[in-house]
Amino acid sequence: GISAPAIAAAEPSIQWRITSSFPKSLETIYGGAEQLAKRVSDLTDGKFQIKVHAAGEIVPGLQALDAVQNGTVQACHTCGYYYVGKNKTFAFDTAVPFGLSSRQQAAWMYYGGGLQLMREFLRDYKVISFYGGNTGTQMGGWFRNPVKSLADVKGLKIRIPGIGGEVWSRLGAVPQTLAGGDIYPALEKGTIDAAEWVGPYDDEKLGFYKVAKNYFYPGWWEPGPQISFYVNLEEWAKLPKSYQAAFEVATAEAAIAMQAEYDAKNPQALVRLLQAGVKLHKYPADIMKAAQKATFELYEEEAAKNASFKKVYTEWKKFRGIEQGWFSLAESGLESFMYANRVK
Amino acid sequence: GISAPAIAAAEPSIQWRITSSFPKSLETIYGGAEQLAKRVSDLTDGKFQIKVHAAGEIVPGLQALDAVQNGTVQACHTCGYYYVGKNKTFAFDTAVPFGLSSRQQAAWMYYGGGLQLMREFLRDYKVISFYGGNTGTQMGGWFRNPVKSLADVKGLKIRIPGIGGEVWSRLGAVPQTLAGGDIYPALEKGTIDAAEWVGPYDDEKLGFYKVAKNYFYPGWWEPGPQISFYVNLEEWAKLPKSYQAAFEVATAEAAIAMQAEYDAKNPQALVRLLQAGVKLHKYPADIMKAAQKATFELYEEEAAKNASFKKVYTEWKKFRGIEQGWFSLAESGLESFMYANRVK
Repeated sequence: GISAPAIAAAEPSIQWRITSSFPKSLETIYGGAEQLAKRVSDLTDGKFQIKVHAAGEIVPGLQALDAVQNGTVQACHTCGYYYVGKNKTFAFDTAVPFGLSSRQQAAWMYYGGGLQLMREFLRDYKVISFYGGNTGTQMGGWFRNPVKSLADVKGLKIRIPGIGGEVWSRLGAVPQTLAGGDIYPALEKGTIDAAEWVGPYDDEKLGFYKVAKNYFYPGWWEPGPQISFYVNLEEWAKLPKSYQAAFEVATAEAAIAMQAEYDAKNPQALVRLLQAGVKLHKYPADIMKAAQKATFELYEEEAAKNASFKKVYTEWKKFRGIEQGWFSLAESGLESFMYANRVK
Repeated sequence: GISAPAIAAAEPSIQWRITSSFPKSLETIYGGAEQLAKRVSDLTDGKFQIKVHAAGEIVPGLQALDAVQNGTVQACHTCGYYYVGKNKTFAFDTAVPFGLSSRQQAAWMYYGGGLQLMREFLRDYKVISFYGGNTGTQMGGWFRNPVKSLADVKGLKIRIPGIGGEVWSRLGAVPQTLAGGDIYPALEKGTIDAAEWVGPYDDEKLGFYKVAKNYFYPGWWEPGPQISFYVNLEEWAKLPKSYQAAFEVATAEAAIAMQAEYDAKNPQALVRLLQAGVKLHKYPADIMKAAQKATFELYEEEAAKNASFKKVYTEWKKFRGIEQGWFSLAESGLESFMYANRVK
């Protein structure tokens, strides 16, 4: 039995704009919004049209949320942690140092209460959020000279924004905030000693390996960075139910596809980088341990003075602990074995 | 500019049946097809209706492919590796021992050429496949008495089907094939020494921990088992383009949601199992090494006599090698550190 169908022909033609926080040149992450727009059009017989604008076309990449909040555009594809200047709670919508892996972040959002918590927080900014992609664990940056122990961090000028930068600062480094295009010349001239960006595929495009051959891992400040779609709440409420369904299902497809695309492209880019003479380095254990300690001290301090941070952090930390108990067994156990016992 | 919309009201009412290979009681894996059916209905104003049938309602779970191939149903939600009796190549559509993790499998399917390869193979069975879920790395089974080294495997009666069972056989075990409902009494009576099933959440329901407290990890024969939607090719071709789009996008949503649901529920089930007195054991290194060696010998032997297996295996092995080079760095490096240095 089929319930009485809505008369689809009577549904409205709607045109939206999405502002992306990313340039077209980073097509893996930028492409998520393009994929969503195409799918939504296909699902609505072309009646719900979304035009995607790259960072800077309408507003700068780091003002995407503001543009949605004030109604300049209906939606954006962005990272919550770009807005930690407004409130550090935003970081949980993307990634925080020593936080959740990509799969753990998706689990938290879809089935662990994370999405509800973040939507409640984001209501003050007049937006509703959707899980809209992930890069996986990022790399730990390009260094002109390798750091060999915690002592080498003292005075290190490293390009890294956000909470990750604050943790580096607590370790004695001097974090710098530079836009993507300004990193290469600064690394080349030695104005900075090191810089983090994303991972092999995106980093290769910016050519950092030509001026700083030491590539460190892991990027402990970005274990599984989520990319989010934020939609203006009033615009969302105006959509017919079937258009809401089309948008929501398309966010899920964009999300799984973005992670899969990174997971297919990063390994190949790594092969090319190694052929170009890049030297891999694992962060020394004393830096990792000091960084994790400083990170959780920072969280506790923030929770003591920021009620919304405390609310999300408390739930997030509990979830993280239980997740780690499971992922440390089958998942991590098998991967560790296979990577230590490679079959040629 | 909106292109001339198709007149949606003119699109046909279509009713499909999906046979699932899973019982309703395993709601995480069974639920993937239900979620797809609901979403497709919402996206088509109720005009494309899909009714999901649990294993056994129309055909037994392990005959789902046959039911699609001969037109009994239009589609199924199943695992390719149930059909290795027809051709071992089917296993690559799900998981093979020491194979790809969940994310690697998705990357292979969506961006690594895996979907094209498998669709080409599956054309002979008159179906088109879609990535439709993953459980993540499974556990390594319940043992009445722990195995302490490879010597203990000799004569071990372990319930495990498929290629995993063949590898256990090469290690000296005596693999058994038992349906889910028959495992508990066999373990209780000692007719078998051990049995593998899925992971904490599904295993808990069958109560194995009450009769065999030793829970081994990792399930090296199932690093990231994919669940697939198979659709009859003729039925697929009959769908309007917008219904094809609705079905395809809904498979992606079902896929990311299933992994997220397992990743949220398994950790909590593990906590409960440990409270019930379950003892965790890591497989001894000599068993792991002998198993990986026997596994790749089996692959090489099969490739020498099975052209379709050889074609897929050759591409798969190359992909696997490149993936491992990347995942062993940032992803595995950060997780290993965090699991070895847990924050309370």
